[in-house]
Amino acid sequence: MDRTITHHLRSVIMAGGSGTRFWPKSRWLFPKQFLKILSDKSMLQMTIERLLPLTPMEHIYIVGNKSHKPLFEQQVSGCDDTHLVLEPVGKNTAACIATMAFILSRQDPENILLILPADHWITDAAKFRKTLSRAAAAAYHERAIVTLGIPPTFPSTGYGYIKISQSSQEEENASVYPVEAFVEKPNLERARTYLEAGNFYWNSGIFITRADVILSEIATHLPDLHAPLRKLQTIVPSGIPDFLEEVYPTLPSISIDYGVMEKTNKAMMTKADFGWSDVGSWDALYDLSPKDRAQNVTEGLAILEDCRGCLVSSHGHMIAGVGLEDIIVINSPDATLVLPRGRSQDVRRIVERLKENGLEELI
Amino acid sequence: MDRTITHHLRSVIMAGGSGTRFWPKSRWLFPKQFLKILSDKSMLQMTIERLLPLTPMEHIYIVGNKSHKPLFEQQVSGCDDTHLVLEPVGKNTAACIATMAFILSRQDPENILLILPADHWITDAAKFRKTLSRAAAAAYHERAIVTLGIPPTFPSTGYGYIKISQSSQEEENASVYPVEAFVEKPNLERARTYLEAGNFYWNSGIFITRADVILSEIATHLPDLHAPLRKLQTIVPSGIPDFLEEVYPTLPSISIDYGVMEKTNKAMMTKADFGWSDVGSWDALYDLSPKDRAQNVTEGLAILEDCRGCLVSSHGHMIAGVGLEDIIVINSPDATLVLPRGRSQDVRRIVERLKENGLEELI
Repeated sequence: MDRTITHHLRSVIMAGGSGTRFWPKSRWLFPKQFLKILSDKSMLQMTIERLLPLTPMEHIYIVGNKSHKPLFEQQVSGCDDTHLVLEPVGKNTAACIATMAFILSRQDPENILLILPADHWITDAAKFRKTLSRAAAAAYHERAIVTLGIPPTFPSTGYGYIKISQSSQEEENASVYPVEAFVEKPNLERARTYLEAGNFYWNSGIFITRADVILSEIATHLPDLHAPLRKLQTIVPSGIPDFLEEVYPTLPSISIDYGVMEKTNKAMMTKADFGWSDVGSWDALYDLSPKDRAQNVTEGLAILEDCRGCLVSSHGHMIAGVGLEDIIVINSPDATLVLPRGRSQDVRRIVERLKENGLEELI
Repeated sequence: MDRTITHHLRSVIMAGGSGTRFWPKSRWLFPKQFLKILSDKSMLQMTIERLLPLTPMEHIYIVGNKSHKPLFEQQVSGCDDTHLVLEPVGKNTAACIATMAFILSRQDPENILLILPADHWITDAAKFRKTLSRAAAAAYHERAIVTLGIPPTFPSTGYGYIKISQSSQEEENASVYPVEAFVEKPNLERARTYLEAGNFYWNSGIFITRADVILSEIATHLPDLHAPLRKLQTIVPSGIPDFLEEVYPTLPSISIDYGVMEKTNKAMMTKADFGWSDVGSWDALYDLSPKDRAQNVTEGLAILEDCRGCLVSSHGHMIAGVGLEDIIVINSPDATLVLPRGRSQDVRRIVERLKENGLEELI
């Protein structure tokens, strides 16, 4: 890779999520990026490790929620105030990316931001880094905002799609394509037509862009976000936490996809065929996990008799199953979830019921 | 009821069981008779309560295992050494019954023993007591050993059967019938022929007999049991615990059915149609429990979303189910069991696996 590019690479890990799709393991105060669900390392730790050959630790920045500070300190060693940017309140991806673009453009406006969620699964890390390098080159030289598009393997209704033109799709040797449109999560029928068409890709939520380029697009398309954060260009670094504390609550909450990518003419896409999952549910976790001969996945203390296709995760407590087929059992210290495989999208219904019943301490 | 009979009635509750069919709620040190699984009272407490209108507390005797002494003290108030007979080691029903027959024959050889397991479910307690009274009269006057036969409702392979003659079955006004044979647990085919035949009844394990009658039968058919226990007729009551401690380990371990009932010509049977279950498994418990509109049974902290036909029991821990059908989830402080309804006979396979894996502390 071009040394100019290597020199400008900065990883920005977005680790501010607070979902409960992995309830009862994930909680508001212990979300998915901190879970060790696929390894003895957390999703965040795996994300960092995956980036190290590309950007050394001093070029990795993590943006997270202030309430998770103890978790960051526990999981990321040597993460000082400069490299861990804490948001006092979550304001979606545009605010997070704008903040980091301002901070990193102070070092050098040509810095290239590799913007990645902290909680994705990547199968082939080397190929992943190669894809990022290719995207970085396009981002640097062509001033493009490059997204990674995942070749769809089934008509998913859970992801947004990126459309590239049929003609560019067929171009030989092309590796970065102009984006024709960003498409929101479709219904099943639409998802099927996208899959058949061949020029639609899953939106991975990974973006590669120069700091100056994304800032100028944010200035154009999200002036209400750009203006209040502008001061980050001149403020003394030690003043950043207090400044964010003050300004964040006033920022618009909007995603970078909706706020910038759907409007800009700088969006490009490169194909990402390194094996990817956003690990969006217990079902996704089952799919990704190595299985035994009976297609069971077990973690922790578990005994399965005559069970097939089950995912059982226990936490210092024996889970015993007999005669189960395609059942998920997730045990945490104060709650146990049981559901058939294929139903894990409905975990949110349990979380809603807990809220209704005033059992917030379990969420 | 005849006052002579009332005067001689003594309830003998056999509470020495130590099974694990209700694992993980029941344990070797906390078996089913002590569980509050169908009520806020334990099976033992319900058994005592059911008998009180027939035999006041001072005429109720409980035989249990020494290791359960703290549980008896906790669950049975005012149960002194005379009324709680503790076996140092379980030796099946013949030893238990022989011991109590010796002890109670000292008061009066004509005493009638109502011998009942501590862990059965009875639907209609008044009818149950009426049946016992009828049996007691036959036991007293005809010197019969009367068993209660449950009219079978399906071809169960889980119970032994009592056969009475076809002709006596058809006799009008008869209420106590001579037993033609005791039959061990049959296979399904045989169970079907028994059900069709109409003169086969489930063996409830409930016996009504005079002390002198059963002792003479034990002397005849189980001399090796009778001889060592004989001293109970003369020993001072305060010496009984030490005596049992010494003699019990040497006693033969045999059931009263196999040791006496299959051999004696004094066996009679009366029909028991008061609604009965030996509550032999989680499935049986589900069948007996009141259900909500979705046919679910829940106990403790549980949230079920779109679930049908489930039994969920939790212990200070939230159990959340989504989309489950006919699934049993049983949570205890250190283990949780999950299985489909209809498979609860296989709980023993889990207990075996725990043993194999050296996890006896969970049993």
